Amino acid sequence: MKLKEVGEKVLVETARKTFRKGKSIRIGIGDDAAAVDLPGKKCLVVTTDMLVASTHFPAGMKPEQIGIKSVVVNLSDLASMGAEPLGLAFSVALPRELEFGYVKRIMRGMESAAKEYGTYVVGGDLDEAEEITIAGSAFGLADKNKLLRRSGVRKGDILAVTGELGAASAGLKIIMEKIPAKGYGELVKAQLEPKARVMEGMALARSGHVKAAIDVSDGLAANLWHLSRESGVKIIIDREKIPVHRLVKKFSAQYGYDIDEFALYSGEDFELIFATQPRFWESVKSALKRTGTKATPIGMAVEGSGVFIKIGEKIDELKDRGYEHFK
Amino acid sequence: MKLKEVGEKVLVETARKTFRKGKSIRIGIGDDAAAVDLPGKKCLVVTTDMLVASTHFPAGMKPEQIGIKSVVVNLSDLASMGAEPLGLAFSVALPRELEFGYVKRIMRGMESAAKEYGTYVVGGDLDEAEEITIAGSAFGLADKNKLLRRSGVRKGDILAVTGELGAASAGLKIIMEKIPAKGYGELVKAQLEPKARVMEGMALARSGHVKAAIDVSDGLAANLWHLSRESGVKIIIDREKIPVHRLVKKFSAQYGYDIDEFALYSGEDFELIFATQPRFWESVKSALKRTGTKATPIGMAVEGSGVFIKIGEKIDELKDRGYEHFK
Repeated sequence: MKLKEVGEKVLVETARKTFRKGKSIRIGIGDDAAAVDLPGKKCLVVTTDMLVASTHFPAGMKPEQIGIKSVVVNLSDLASMGAEPLGLAFSVALPRELEFGYVKRIMRGMESAAKEYGTYVVGGDLDEAEEITIAGSAFGLADKNKLLRRSGVRKGDILAVTGELGAASAGLKIIMEKIPAKGYGELVKAQLEPKARVMEGMALARSGHVKAAIDVSDGLAANLWHLSRESGVKIIIDREKIPVHRLVKKFSAQYGYDIDEFALYSGEDFELIFATQPRFWESVKSALKRTGTKATPIGMAVEGSGVFIKIGEKIDELKDRGYEHFK
Repeated sequence: MKLKEVGEKVLVETARKTFRKGKSIRIGIGDDAAAVDLPGKKCLVVTTDMLVASTHFPAGMKPEQIGIKSVVVNLSDLASMGAEPLGLAFSVALPRELEFGYVKRIMRGMESAAKEYGTYVVGGDLDEAEEITIAGSAFGLADKNKLLRRSGVRKGDILAVTGELGAASAGLKIIMEKIPAKGYGELVKAQLEPKARVMEGMALARSGHVKAAIDVSDGLAANLWHLSRESGVKIIIDREKIPVHRLVKKFSAQYGYDIDEFALYSGEDFELIFATQPRFWESVKSALKRTGTKATPIGMAVEGSGVFIKIGEKIDELKDRGYEHFK
C-alpha cells in the first residue's frame, strides 16, 4: 500500500505504536510538541516542523518570508503547549544553483522572526537538495504541571480561540488564483508572514486555568477533531461565534467563495484554540488581554465524542476535513 | 554568486554573523551542537542533521538502516559535546508513491537505534517531498562546566581518537563501485549501520579532564582543522599512530586505493577526536576503557596554527580536505 492510500493519520498512529515512551517522556508523539521531564519543576518542550518549497512556499514568497515562516511554524507548536522558547535550530537543504544572496535573505528572515519572539537561532545543518527544504526544531521550557495539551479538554469546558480566522488561507487563495490583492493586502500578509501566539500560550499556561490547547495549523475543524479525540469529549461549537476575519467575509462575498472553506477547513492561521472552565473564563480572558490579544468563546465540551456545529437551530457533525499530507 | 561557488564554510560563517547569540547561549553556531543554559548546573545540548536520500543513502541501503543512520548522525553530535541524550525528534518528508511498509521499516530502524543508546523518539513531523528527506534533532543534557567543545584544545594537549578510522568510507567505496564485499562485510556495515560514541563522549566529559572533542563526520583531516581553527592552536599528528581499520589496509592494498583517502579524508566514522593534558592521559584512557572503547593518541597541540602531519622524519601541512557541501 502506498502512502497516498494510507494518509498522514495512519502514519502518525504507526509512529505512536512503534516508538517506546520512556518514563521521562511526559508528552510523546501525537501532540503539537513533545515534553520531556527535566530535573526539578520544568520540562523541555521540543517540536520539529519541515517546510518543503513546492508544498509550503507559494509563488512570489520572498526569501525573508521563507525565513519568517520557518520560525513561526515551529514557535507556534511551542505556543500551543504554553512553553517559553529557548531557541531554534534549522536543518536547511538547498540547491547548488541557488544564489548566495537569496540564502542570506532567508537567514535574515529567520533572525528577525526569532528576535520578535525573544529567542535565538542557535544551530543548524546544511545540505544539498533539489528544492529548498527547511526543517526547524524549536525547544523551550514549561512547568510540568502547567503544560497545555491536546488531551486536556474536560466536559463542561468552554472552547475559545485567539484572534480571528481565515486570513491566511484567503491570502493563499489570492496568491494561487492571482486575484488582485488590492484592499486585501492584510490577507496576503497573513499567509506570507504569519504570527505565532507565543506570549499568548505562555499567558494561558501561567494562568493555571487552561490545560488544553492546539494551534490552528490544519484548520479549525481538523484541530477541534484532534482535541475531541485526544481528550475523549464531544465538542459543540456555534457557527455564529466563530471570529472570522472581516476581510475574509468581504473577500468571500466579492469573489463568491464559501467563508467556511477559509475559516473552518483551512489552516495556517496559527491562532490558539484552548479550553477552560466557565468559572475561570474572565480570569483567563484578562490574562490574555495583557498580551494584547482577544479571545472568543466558540463552544463547549460535553460528554460524548465527535465535533458538532450549531448553525441556527440545527446541530450537525462538523466535517473532519483539513489539510492532511499524502492524501 | 551561486552556492556551488561559495561553499558550505562561507555559509556557516554567514550564519554565525547573522544570528544573535543570547546570554543563555553557551555554544552557538559553529560547533557540533548548540548548548543553552538551563537554570542550575545543566545545559541543554541540541543538534539537528538532515539526511537527503540522493546524498546520504547509498543504493541498497535498507530502510531499517536509513532509520539507524538518522538516529546515529544526530546522537554523534551530542556525543562530541559529552551530552547525555534525552530524546530525538524527526521531520520526515516522503514521496506519496512510497510503500507504507517501507516507512514502517524506517521507523523500526529509528526505534532500535534509539533504544541501543537508551533514548527515545519523542516527536516528529510528516511532509511530502520528491525524495526521502529526514531531518533529525537530538537533545540532551550536559554539565555546564564539563562540555566538550571544538574550541577547547590547549597547547600541550594530547590529541587522541576513539576506535579505528576509514571503515565507513571504504564501505561506501565498495557499495558505489560494486566491489565484491566478500571478506569486507564489516566495512560495508560500518557505512550502513554506523555507531555513535555516546557513552564514550559522556565518559570523557565526566572525567573532567577533557575539554575538547569533535566527531569524525567530515574526515579526520577536516575535523582536525576545525579543532585547530576553533581552538587557535597548531596540531601535529603522527601518520604512524593513526588507527586505521585493519580491513581498510587490506582492502586498499588489494584494490589499489590510497589508505589515506579513507582514513584521513573521508568521513562518517563517527569516532571522537578529543584532547587532554598528558598528565591526565592514563586517567582518561581508563575512563574510556570502562565503556569498552580504546583510544589512540595521534598527536599534540602546540603554539601556532594549522594542522600538520609527520610522516617518517618529514612534517607537512595536512590538507584541509574532506566532505564539504555545495562545492
